[in-house]
Amino acid sequence: MAPAPELLRPGDEEARSLAKALISGASFAALAVTEAGSGLPFCSRIALAQDADGTAMGFVSGLAQHTQALRANPDCCLLIGEPGDRGDPLTHPRLSLQARAVFPEEASAARLDLWLARHPKARIYAGLPDFRFVRFEARVGFLNGGFGRAFRLSPADLAG
Amino acid sequence: MAPAPELLRPGDEEARSLAKALISGASFAALAVTEAGSGLPFCSRIALAQDADGTAMGFVSGLAQHTQALRANPDCCLLIGEPGDRGDPLTHPRLSLQARAVFPEEASAARLDLWLARHPKARIYAGLPDFRFVRFEARVGFLNGGFGRAFRLSPADLAG
Repeated sequence: MAPAPELLRPGDEEARSLAKALISGASFAALAVTEAGSGLPFCSRIALAQDADGTAMGFVSGLAQHTQALRANPDCCLLIGEPGDRGDPLTHPRLSLQARAVFPEEASAARLDLWLARHPKARIYAGLPDFRFVRFEARVGFLNGGFGRAFRLSPADLAG
Repeated sequence: MAPAPELLRPGDEEARSLAKALISGASFAALAVTEAGSGLPFCSRIALAQDADGTAMGFVSGLAQHTQALRANPDCCLLIGEPGDRGDPLTHPRLSLQARAVFPEEASAARLDLWLARHPKARIYAGLPDFRFVRFEARVGFLNGGFGRAFRLSPADLAG
């Protein structure tokens, strides 16, 4: 349960470490976008990795609903930190990461290598012409530590 | 990868059954809302159950960010269908359920019984004054069957 902003603590060292570990450990996430046209929220699952600078990164099809939404409006939010099969999902740490989606123009072999290291099966679709990398540049992170403590984290808290 | 609307099939019997099984089997979900004030997407994890008529239902704190957002703007989207620890998360079936959040005014012992049957530990917070049930009344569902097929499902497809 993400508490209201006035209940959030600023990031401390433990919170920063946990948030970074959630990002670096995630191979997928929920992505919330605003649907073009209707303006309605839309939420889907995407594969995730990290760009060289640690920024959360996706590799998305131009045909996908979320990609079309992000092209029209780059504001989005990732929910990172999957509880898996064990324990109470609401006590498992997770990060709501509000971000702006940026589609780098240049092709990057280094980015593809990073992606394939995390997602080896992506080689199947990596060569398709409509796939693009997208960087999720942090605006603010809300960390629910799963231990009754919630934090508001700045881009600086989340960097590196 | 949710495909663009023009690639979506209308629901068939298999798709309807799978979508209903995802809803009835979910004890939590990702919830996408539009943040009041900023208008930015926000995504968090919530506990989930089903109301007596099968409608997906949450039990949320008035202090939570997502509740404050839904009070201001009831448009939302649930991502239902968790991959767990095994297999490829992007081949696991999931449902993007665009919905309107409705907070029933009347207290309902039957609703609380349904909730506690799914979430026994909720007894700890069920008596807190700021907790309210919220029904997620379907607008449209996008089912990614995890087998390379995607469907657009109407409220009628999802009912019952």
